[in-house]
Amino acid sequence: MISKHHPRYESIKVRERLVDGHKKGITVLEGLIAHGRGEAFDYLLGEKTTGPASNAIRASAALLVLAECPVISVNGNTAVLCPQGLVELAEVCNAKLEVNLFYRSDRRARKIEETLIEHGADRVYGVSPTEVIDGIASERRMVDKEGIFKSDVVLVALEDGDRTEALVKQGKKVIAVDLNPLSRTARYATVTVVDNVIRAVPELVKEVRRLKNAQERGGRDGGDLSSDLEMMVSAFDNQKNLGESLEVMCRNIFKEYSFSEE
Amino acid sequence: MISKHHPRYESIKVRERLVDGHKKGITVLEGLIAHGRGEAFDYLLGEKTTGPASNAIRASAALLVLAECPVISVNGNTAVLCPQGLVELAEVCNAKLEVNLFYRSDRRARKIEETLIEHGADRVYGVSPTEVIDGIASERRMVDKEGIFKSDVVLVALEDGDRTEALVKQGKKVIAVDLNPLSRTARYATVTVVDNVIRAVPELVKEVRRLKNAQERGGRDGGDLSSDLEMMVSAFDNQKNLGESLEVMCRNIFKEYSFSEE
Repeated sequence: MISKHHPRYESIKVRERLVDGHKKGITVLEGLIAHGRGEAFDYLLGEKTTGPASNAIRASAALLVLAECPVISVNGNTAVLCPQGLVELAEVCNAKLEVNLFYRSDRRARKIEETLIEHGADRVYGVSPTEVIDGIASERRMVDKEGIFKSDVVLVALEDGDRTEALVKQGKKVIAVDLNPLSRTARYATVTVVDNVIRAVPELVKEVRRLKNAQERGGRDGGDLSSDLEMMVSAFDNQKNLGESLEVMCRNIFKEYSFSEE
Repeated sequence: MISKHHPRYESIKVRERLVDGHKKGITVLEGLIAHGRGEAFDYLLGEKTTGPASNAIRASAALLVLAECPVISVNGNTAVLCPQGLVELAEVCNAKLEVNLFYRSDRRARKIEETLIEHGADRVYGVSPTEVIDGIASERRMVDKEGIFKSDVVLVALEDGDRTEALVKQGKKVIAVDLNPLSRTARYATVTVVDNVIRAVPELVKEVRRLKNAQERGGRDGGDLSSDLEMMVSAFDNQKNLGESLEVMCRNIFKEYSFSEE
């Protein structure tokens, strides 16, 4: 039992959820190590949604609202870290939820489907995928005909670079949630949200909801928000935004450091 | 099977050792997450022993040579990552090896003892600890009466801040090997080596051996190295050294980033 007064209590509780997810057969050991890498970057980001991340979240929400067939890709770690948020996000933007795994097994896919359904999902794609995305060496290439295969916008979180690159090559727009601004995924994605999924997903839900409400009001007044959203998306410069996240990291590094010297 | 030509081959092999250590009951799942954090910081350090780390290694070696009762604290990850190096280090500086675990169980403690003995240790402390260090909430508070309890210098690797702080409060000198220069352990320790234990421990062995040889030669010549070593230790500024490691990280971050923009 961890005391609530432990300075890293929140972070330890999240770890315990992943460990528990491993015991349930949802997360793999490699996923636990990957989570640790994320923790380190999150720490350097100050463990909060930064300014550049908020801008990327706004651009991502616009992409999701404009999408014709958006899909939210779910892996073992995200299924454990924010199942509720992913189901809500799918709901507010009429997106499909699709299981996609690097270390794929039918059992794992079904466990993740189960988790999402427990959290309110109607249907989960990708449990028995039949289509293949070219250029991906891992099991991540297997996709659902009705899901990622025909999607125009895919949200991926805690992803590997190979798949992000392959999806972009297929002409899809990729929203990546990734704590490492230097990762290949971060560099290849259309919009990269350099933030913890636990924080970013609820923010995305809020932002999509706000845009949808504005769209509805606009519709009643005879206006159309779509062209505004399109402009917002095309004005978003992902490389510039990544640079800003790196700057935040470096500023935090030195802020923390001068604090420790006082 | 991972190809030897994989750009992350070394890093993947190390991960496999930890996963294997988990199957043997030595490393815990939380230890795998901690390893991931280390990987991220190591990546930012350029995955090599930096200049500031070399300076900290020299100061650590001096502390170990001057110590009356040095103890090397061993946890699950270090037992898997560098058992040979830890046993050698204990040997060259007449230090005791003591098992100390956050998630303690008799079985894990015995497994780690076994591993160290397989790698040549004569005796391992802390398997049945009877003493308590105040101010530590976790199982790490349990220490061996003949080991950490009566030590003057303790080397800890991949440690939590609570224990480092508590050990320093007890008047002990703490050498920490920690890849995160901003961690509480890094800040609290007497000397922090911001480096991967896999690289730092063999360097420490080399440096202690060099000092011991110099001491022996000095003894024959009627000289005494101790006052030089004491001066070296007191001249070492841990906060300044941490700042230098942070500078290395920031320089690397921007080197990577400008590379990605080309």
